[in-house]
Amino acid sequence: MIVQTINATRLRKRIEALSQIGKIGETGVCRLALSKEDRQAVELVKGWMNEAGMETRIDHFGNLIGRLEGKNPHLPVLMLGSHIDSQPYGGRFDGTIGVLGAIEVVQSLHEQHIVPDVPIEVVSFCDEEGCRFNKGIFGVRGMTGKLEDGELERTDKDGVTRRQALLDFGCDPAKFKESEYPEGSIGAFLEMHIEQGPILDHSNEPIGIVSGISGPLWLTVEMTGFAGHAGSVPMSMRQDALVGAAKVITALNEIAKQDSETPTVGTVGNLEVFPNSRNIIPEKVTFTIDLRDIDLERRNRYETELRTIIGHIARENSLSCSIKEDTNSEPRYCADWIKDIIRNESKKQGLNPPELMSGPFHDSLVMSYACDYGMIFVRCKDGISHNPKEYATYEDITIGTEVLYQTTVQMINKMKG
Amino acid sequence: MIVQTINATRLRKRIEALSQIGKIGETGVCRLALSKEDRQAVELVKGWMNEAGMETRIDHFGNLIGRLEGKNPHLPVLMLGSHIDSQPYGGRFDGTIGVLGAIEVVQSLHEQHIVPDVPIEVVSFCDEEGCRFNKGIFGVRGMTGKLEDGELERTDKDGVTRRQALLDFGCDPAKFKESEYPEGSIGAFLEMHIEQGPILDHSNEPIGIVSGISGPLWLTVEMTGFAGHAGSVPMSMRQDALVGAAKVITALNEIAKQDSETPTVGTVGNLEVFPNSRNIIPEKVTFTIDLRDIDLERRNRYETELRTIIGHIARENSLSCSIKEDTNSEPRYCADWIKDIIRNESKKQGLNPPELMSGPFHDSLVMSYACDYGMIFVRCKDGISHNPKEYATYEDITIGTEVLYQTTVQMINKMKG
Repeated sequence: MIVQTINATRLRKRIEALSQIGKIGETGVCRLALSKEDRQAVELVKGWMNEAGMETRIDHFGNLIGRLEGKNPHLPVLMLGSHIDSQPYGGRFDGTIGVLGAIEVVQSLHEQHIVPDVPIEVVSFCDEEGCRFNKGIFGVRGMTGKLEDGELERTDKDGVTRRQALLDFGCDPAKFKESEYPEGSIGAFLEMHIEQGPILDHSNEPIGIVSGISGPLWLTVEMTGFAGHAGSVPMSMRQDALVGAAKVITALNEIAKQDSETPTVGTVGNLEVFPNSRNIIPEKVTFTIDLRDIDLERRNRYETELRTIIGHIARENSLSCSIKEDTNSEPRYCADWIKDIIRNESKKQGLNPPELMSGPFHDSLVMSYACDYGMIFVRCKDGISHNPKEYATYEDITIGTEVLYQTTVQMINKMKG
Repeated sequence: MIVQTINATRLRKRIEALSQIGKIGETGVCRLALSKEDRQAVELVKGWMNEAGMETRIDHFGNLIGRLEGKNPHLPVLMLGSHIDSQPYGGRFDGTIGVLGAIEVVQSLHEQHIVPDVPIEVVSFCDEEGCRFNKGIFGVRGMTGKLEDGELERTDKDGVTRRQALLDFGCDPAKFKESEYPEGSIGAFLEMHIEQGPILDHSNEPIGIVSGISGPLWLTVEMTGFAGHAGSVPMSMRQDALVGAAKVITALNEIAKQDSETPTVGTVGNLEVFPNSRNIIPEKVTFTIDLRDIDLERRNRYETELRTIIGHIARENSLSCSIKEDTNSEPRYCADWIKDIIRNESKKQGLNPPELMSGPFHDSLVMSYACDYGMIFVRCKDGISHNPKEYATYEDITIGTEVLYQTTVQMINKMKG
């Protein structure tokens, strides 16, 4: 790095301190949303926000918010942040580097005696992971008025409702409206996060600029043939559902990788065979399709290709077939002006970060409907995440946080109007 | 039919009467080996053997044996038979038509005042299905000295050992040796059975001549790649075990059906994905291979082809791979002289039965190691078996039993030496 404004040692100590809460094994973390561990972590992070010069509050959605007042308190805020809840068998970097990095940015501004024109808020969003109530990005959806009916009645494995968990956390669901941000009140959102994929590690780059978050298309395909004894039904008379499914899996793979220049990905992750007995021809196979692309037009075109091929395969193998659409999210693009700033500030640091798509979603996905957003990815060893083995070097986190700082400085200049 | 010697009405009544024991639903049967229902069925069938002019006994393996003495009691016996135990959710024809058909043959010989030179024995073999103790063709293996260590200690789902079940049935495992047949004492074996496959139904033939029983090659393949987020790992960097497995499934299918003139069959019936989550790239897939052919040389050649392709697929998809051999049975061919007799006797009846391989095994498989054997298949509706829907028409069973009778007459002539 050519310039280093932020305090790398302080940041590292905070990441390490936070990783002790809900620690599992040597490197793992289990800090489920709205749990005792989450509360303990929120209190710790709240203290650091105060140290950084921010006023803090916990809203009724369970979001922890720190505010550095701007010269003009009425301007739309620049929001930074991520989450500190974890997967049940998670790592110490997912989400946390975005929250602690943002606090480090504000504390550095403070130490540089920079008072921004626009207010800056650092948010640690409640329940991004969604493991406990099987539905995530809760806090950010609450704050932006995007909760759905019945969310408070969802229960965890012990039968505790989200409503009760929020009440126990000190929140009041009856006062949700008070915690919503009026339209236009958030000027822009900036998030730093580990990549959770192998691209930066593979290309040996410490950070990357996110082009957007590719919402997945999720389908469930069910192919049905006819069971029979594996020894007695001639090949020509078979209606083998697994042979059909195998051809679809191969076809999806071919479709997704047909253009090696594009980030399209296609995956069959879940597959069930019935009756699943070694000497019985499979009668029914149910499997999922996950198709993602930053280019929606291309994804739609590939989906059409896939559906056509599935039809052919079903006919050729005498199978009946149904396709159910479970999720159809659109890609959400990062703002060009924020990407440009990240790129310029990176260059000043002697870096040339690649632009890459985010397959996983983040709090940013929801923020994209409220304001312009940008994301900085930090290299993640072997692309491993949601696992205690998740690892990012402190050198890379420092680089990412410095770029986050410099980007913030430029953004507040731009946003003062 | 041109000639009908056997009593079709008597045979039908016996099949219907036997199907009442252990009846489930309208058409199903549950008559597990050595159960109370099995005992009741054995007693009923024993009475019919006596009616047919046979002397009966139950040996220490639980086999019910009826003997029609020959003019020369010292000649090797012609053995006929099959089994009357059933699958837990089985049909009324599997096995039973072979036992009751054989009794009908002997009773018809008796009524025709034919006294054979060689003794004829009709056997209802104990526990062909193997459902209760998870290992079948027990009685026939016992009788021919082919039991393995530890078989008596196998338990059913209630914890009852086979030893106890045999004792409760009135058998004495200490006296097994007394029930073994000395080498050379069985001259030939003839079995009638429903096809349990769709070939005869499809080709509109009431009966078929079995060419042999194709023992299966059973492999378990494990392909291992590397898990990762379905949204974040580029296609070019994936090690997707399910994509590898899908290609193997397709390859096996292509190999098995490469020559449409041959009865080769290849099946993947069981497949497990790990971690089997819709947004995680499959790390490990374990699946079974079932490859059968009446031509062992060809099956071996296809196995080599398959193993080579699996190696290619593993390398191309950066997967590690292990292949475990679970079973490697050799095909067992029916004796030409018995097939010739069945063919000639069928022709006399105006029939031209096709020759076909048996994929499933039968008591005949074990008998093939003791003597020459032949099998007559009876058409089975839609190829469905091991299911209450299993169905064969009484017309077809009558045709099969008449050919069984005429074949028996020719075989005893041939066997008198």
